[in-house]
Amino acid sequence: MSVQTILLDFSVDPARLGDECGQRAVFDQLETVLKDYIPNLVLSADVKIDGGSLKLLVGKKGTSVSTRLFDQGLVTVNIEYYKEENEAPLMDYKSAQVLENQLKKYLSVTKSQSYIPLKRCLFGRYYPSSDNRLLEYDIDEVLFDEQSPFQRVQVVHSKSLGNMLVLDDLQNIAEADLIYTETLMGRGVENYEGKEIIILGGGDGALLYELLKEKPKYVWMLEIDELVMKVSNKYLSTICGDVLEKRKGKNYEIIVEDCMLTLNKFMKEGRKLDYIFGDLTDIPISESACGELWEFMITILESAFKILKPSGKFMTHANGANCPESLKMYEEELLKLKPPVKFTKSKAFVPSFLEEWWFYQISFNTTDLGDA
Amino acid sequence: MSVQTILLDFSVDPARLGDECGQRAVFDQLETVLKDYIPNLVLSADVKIDGGSLKLLVGKKGTSVSTRLFDQGLVTVNIEYYKEENEAPLMDYKSAQVLENQLKKYLSVTKSQSYIPLKRCLFGRYYPSSDNRLLEYDIDEVLFDEQSPFQRVQVVHSKSLGNMLVLDDLQNIAEADLIYTETLMGRGVENYEGKEIIILGGGDGALLYELLKEKPKYVWMLEIDELVMKVSNKYLSTICGDVLEKRKGKNYEIIVEDCMLTLNKFMKEGRKLDYIFGDLTDIPISESACGELWEFMITILESAFKILKPSGKFMTHANGANCPESLKMYEEELLKLKPPVKFTKSKAFVPSFLEEWWFYQISFNTTDLGDA
Repeated sequence: MSVQTILLDFSVDPARLGDECGQRAVFDQLETVLKDYIPNLVLSADVKIDGGSLKLLVGKKGTSVSTRLFDQGLVTVNIEYYKEENEAPLMDYKSAQVLENQLKKYLSVTKSQSYIPLKRCLFGRYYPSSDNRLLEYDIDEVLFDEQSPFQRVQVVHSKSLGNMLVLDDLQNIAEADLIYTETLMGRGVENYEGKEIIILGGGDGALLYELLKEKPKYVWMLEIDELVMKVSNKYLSTICGDVLEKRKGKNYEIIVEDCMLTLNKFMKEGRKLDYIFGDLTDIPISESACGELWEFMITILESAFKILKPSGKFMTHANGANCPESLKMYEEELLKLKPPVKFTKSKAFVPSFLEEWWFYQISFNTTDLGDA
Repeated sequence: MSVQTILLDFSVDPARLGDECGQRAVFDQLETVLKDYIPNLVLSADVKIDGGSLKLLVGKKGTSVSTRLFDQGLVTVNIEYYKEENEAPLMDYKSAQVLENQLKKYLSVTKSQSYIPLKRCLFGRYYPSSDNRLLEYDIDEVLFDEQSPFQRVQVVHSKSLGNMLVLDDLQNIAEADLIYTETLMGRGVENYEGKEIIILGGGDGALLYELLKEKPKYVWMLEIDELVMKVSNKYLSTICGDVLEKRKGKNYEIIVEDCMLTLNKFMKEGRKLDYIFGDLTDIPISESACGELWEFMITILESAFKILKPSGKFMTHANGANCPESLKMYEEELLKLKPPVKFTKSKAFVPSFLEEWWFYQISFNTTDLGDA
């Protein structure tokens, strides 16, 4: 079962909506056409609103039609009704377009637009891009949905992406996302053979699984959320193999705790690593580089560089290519780090994000060190 | 200027919406929380609807809030207001999520969801996928919008895709879509050197431009819509070069007319070609393989095979990978063709479609011919 919401937008000469008489004329035209498409439509409310007016019509099977006129010459029509899963829609995209074209002619509008009907109350079809655009995914099943002590953990199935892990309502990784892991680790560029590596986060197991194929000396994965690993092991085994099932092998182990504990322990022991992966939260999108998330990220970076070998690298995903401000802020923060660091970056289109994503490879700026 | 529409969905135990008293209780809870987020909210209409009820609240700056309760336990909240381009939003996605979480707690709902605010009346941001999903693009400018005698022709600018040609409200090709053209022509697989080729349609010029790089003997491009070529020449020159500007060169020409005229002329002349490209409409999505569009497509195919050499190929784009029924119907139609044909297919993720697309390479089934 779902609620279907069909939206139509129009723009008309604002002069036509200038007074009540003009508004009534436009509304009458709207109503005349709408009545042809939605049976038994009757006016249920007529409200004068600051900056315009709103009329509510109600028709067959409880279909509500809200029509709003804005003084600036904009008109919105919202049609909403309940639909059982196997019931034919009262109005699909094709008929919404026919209605749009009919209204376009009848109202002599300057611009018009109809939207693909929104399938509401299905919970799990709509996700944001990094720059806050609305994207409808081809989700046909919600496989898992529970709150862990740390976050909301969901697994949904997408027709094109396979199973997809969703953390706090954000698409995280899908079975189709090998390119994400390979770009994060710089496969073919970096050499992991015989290397000691830490993964901060990485609860979906995909990075650990791919790194182990490159014959590292040892990998520690530090993940705080047991539930993420449990469901990834169950639903994402095509991308994480058996590493979450086994938790420990001859050259790896997963430590389930706050990653700062192990980082601090390694620091005290004077241990030095070849690679540290930041596979935690994305870099934040905010007006300035402050707040809890930025502080957390900078703390992690500072700690990581205390236990990296001089030749070591910190590898991390950053944010969408459509968020240049956020990426610039991140780079500015990197350049403030002591000791100084330098970075390279790489970009890939990530299937489950439906957008290009930037990844950073950060290392000690030895040129600067030499100068000091 | 735009109209912002913020949508929130909730599901609650249906028993709570079973009678007027229960509905009033849920509505009162909704109203209490909403009043904290939208100042000066007052009830403007209260309508009993078949299968539920609807209350309309109006608040600050003409913000309307439509709350609808469905007997099945679903609750929808639609918030709508006018926003000037540089004005801060009354409610962004973050605050919609905060409101969602507040309502979630207060209403003790079982599921909830907030949507990225819809930016309405901007005309040109929202496009459908092949399987009718709603996709918001990063469009920051509408560069061109006119009706030709054949279709609505638009060019919009996307931050990630560059300029994008839109025909009849469907995304057609963008500057980032080289992969589309290369998969359509099977670059690296097919050899076009010294070959005679027809392009049916292809008004954006990208296919002609890429084919000419492969040193064909001659290419005829048959495009009916002058306006598409005019705007593609102006806005898509990175992917079509100067072929639409010149219209004719030593080994190509563009003929502006119904492609059937030239096909019939070549047929009468007994001319035989190496390749024919179908770069016209997508294969239709319908219940069965009938109707005007299917007939048109089959007529084109039949005519094409009358002027192809025995070794010739018909190359075409088909539809999204998420439309297997439509692709299956197409293949069934292919297998009905006389003389019999065989086909191979290839797939690519097309940036401007935000989905995977199938392409077909169709040739005479000489095995069958041998049997006859």
